[in-house]
Amino acid sequence: MLVNNQPLRTVWQDPDDPDAFQIIDQRALPFRLITERIATVEEAALAIRDMHVRGAGCIGATAGWAMFLAARECLTGAGLDHARLEALAAQLMATRPTAVNLRWAVERQLRVLLEAGAGADAVNIARSEAAAICEEDVAACRAIGQHGLALIREIAARKPGQPVNILTHCNAGWLAFVDIGSATAPIYAAQAAGIPVHVWVDETRPRNQGARLTAWELGMQGVPHTIIADNAGGHLMQHCQVDLVITGADRVTRAGDVANKIGTYLKALAARDCGIPFCVAFPSSTIDWQISDGLREIPIEERSAREVTHLSGIRTPATIGGNVDGVNSVDIDSSGANVRAAEEEEFLISAPGSPAANPAFDVTPARLISWLITEHGCMPPSALATHAPAG
Amino acid sequence: MLVNNQPLRTVWQDPDDPDAFQIIDQRALPFRLITERIATVEEAALAIRDMHVRGAGCIGATAGWAMFLAARECLTGAGLDHARLEALAAQLMATRPTAVNLRWAVERQLRVLLEAGAGADAVNIARSEAAAICEEDVAACRAIGQHGLALIREIAARKPGQPVNILTHCNAGWLAFVDIGSATAPIYAAQAAGIPVHVWVDETRPRNQGARLTAWELGMQGVPHTIIADNAGGHLMQHCQVDLVITGADRVTRAGDVANKIGTYLKALAARDCGIPFCVAFPSSTIDWQISDGLREIPIEERSAREVTHLSGIRTPATIGGNVDGVNSVDIDSSGANVRAAEEEEFLISAPGSPAANPAFDVTPARLISWLITEHGCMPPSALATHAPAG
Repeated sequence: MLVNNQPLRTVWQDPDDPDAFQIIDQRALPFRLITERIATVEEAALAIRDMHVRGAGCIGATAGWAMFLAARECLTGAGLDHARLEALAAQLMATRPTAVNLRWAVERQLRVLLEAGAGADAVNIARSEAAAICEEDVAACRAIGQHGLALIREIAARKPGQPVNILTHCNAGWLAFVDIGSATAPIYAAQAAGIPVHVWVDETRPRNQGARLTAWELGMQGVPHTIIADNAGGHLMQHCQVDLVITGADRVTRAGDVANKIGTYLKALAARDCGIPFCVAFPSSTIDWQISDGLREIPIEERSAREVTHLSGIRTPATIGGNVDGVNSVDIDSSGANVRAAEEEEFLISAPGSPAANPAFDVTPARLISWLITEHGCMPPSALATHAPAG
Repeated sequence: MLVNNQPLRTVWQDPDDPDAFQIIDQRALPFRLITERIATVEEAALAIRDMHVRGAGCIGATAGWAMFLAARECLTGAGLDHARLEALAAQLMATRPTAVNLRWAVERQLRVLLEAGAGADAVNIARSEAAAICEEDVAACRAIGQHGLALIREIAARKPGQPVNILTHCNAGWLAFVDIGSATAPIYAAQAAGIPVHVWVDETRPRNQGARLTAWELGMQGVPHTIIADNAGGHLMQHCQVDLVITGADRVTRAGDVANKIGTYLKALAARDCGIPFCVAFPSSTIDWQISDGLREIPIEERSAREVTHLSGIRTPATIGGNVDGVNSVDIDSSGANVRAAEEEEFLISAPGSPAANPAFDVTPARLISWLITEHGCMPPSALATHAPAG
């Protein structure tokens, strides 16, 4: 997608720099765009562990390229050092043990590399596989966009000349994938098709991924949008200011229950109460066919209380010069690996001494969901089982 | 209620200082407790207009005492200067034109003072009336507490030895009244009755009155509580971690629809979905008997976008010494009129350049409300009409 009018992905290899790959260090967004050159498995592991990259697709793609670097590092005069390769793979998988796409991408590379003959060009094989992982991610998101576009077209046809108002929660945008995103894919597809859209962006406390990342993405892409407190969505739905809700998913059960960022359930309840379609967009790899009842079977991560009691931001516009007030003045710093977002600071925002709890996800029962949107199409949760893999 | 183990109200007259009255300047909470001596109508008007005081009951009480100062200022050798008194009353009412309790308290004092005979002791009449306004506010909150306590007792009886978990939104605590509060009244009554309670405190974005004020109140009073992001309540209800929801109200229609802080509607939906009683506690003066359909008839204030895109807090614990980490080290600064919470700073927390919307209230339809709790008792919304004033 566009950043300062130039296309960018979250993970890519620069053709002029075939010994490394590049990522966006998302920690500094939206206040600074920092791209980072990753040239060793060690650097890749750090980038994953310390959340320079986040989001299932983006982590998987980073892991795919990390295994390309692993193949390079394991190349000896006698061919690929399999034992060392497996050790590096294990090191990568340990960086974020619960990230399903991380394990999937590392194991995919490992299988391809171990199955290649002794005389094979392991580095080029790994490069091709990493590129393929990225392209498949992009293709899935593009297909999600086209399927979701059909829903937006229907609404647009009912209100000619008026924008379709879409509410989204958290960031299931291109920053969470390689490009395009899942929840944002239908929005970007509608924009490309010339359908006027406007996005209500839930700020998504406590980590504010909506206000920080989704709003930044949409602004860079020129999609009209408005940030709202998470509390506001129900009121907007009651007053017919939302036509469609689209969120992403962290995990989907075979019954169609959806685990997603905390607060998603509340928006699904309001959409149901107000008669507004509630959609969840995700690549089919997000489906966990082993479980059915999301409320009983999906453990919910409890994160640090400090994410609730403290928040970080930019103290005054003056601290980063003229860069705060206009989106267009945020520079691409392509050599910025050493530039840290030093101006961002952490603040205490609640009563001193009061404890806080921070469940990170909630489960939206299938009964509240109108459409699941995957690369295979739009379907009600009840139809999901027909897409189950054989066996 | 208690502050550093000393009882305090939001508005009071110090017996040793009969020429003035005192308020808590709530703007500095929870990071600093500042009490302010108000000795002129001019100072009182400023305190109301600049929101040193907030909350219906607290504003009404402040206005009552402001009219006591007005009576003093209008006393001449020839008795009370009625024209001047009416001018000061108008000046006070103009400070926050939509605050119903402000107008009510000023007009009540004005009526009493104008009706008193020429030889009457206007200053003492106004002092008695101001004190009566405060005592009536406290008595109503105390009655709300006793009626709500019955609901808590019932729940406690079903789970002996375990705390009753109550979720609340925004601040309808004693800081919004003279003492005790409305939504908090049943909680404080349960605490006094020895029933173990634990309160989930919605932080209440965008202005964080829950995390700042309600959490501070409960901490000072020694009530176990936990701050949560507004997004978390639904998840907690799904997992049986909430027994009862109690919020306050800004305006209640004769049909029992409730306008309250933005986000209240989402919690009511979740409570309904999870089979948890949803209660709204308020003095009966909050009922607007002129309107019925809250969604159609209550205009919702749109506040500054900056409340969403920016937030204020304490930059680092070091900036106010050891005072941040422990509730008990927050000092009562009774001569602190000149001490400002200078350490609190505003910072940008969202994508630069992205617009925001900020509806301040939403309407919870009566159909989602289990109990309305007023000083007259607990009743389902359908029974509210039986309490309508005659005529």
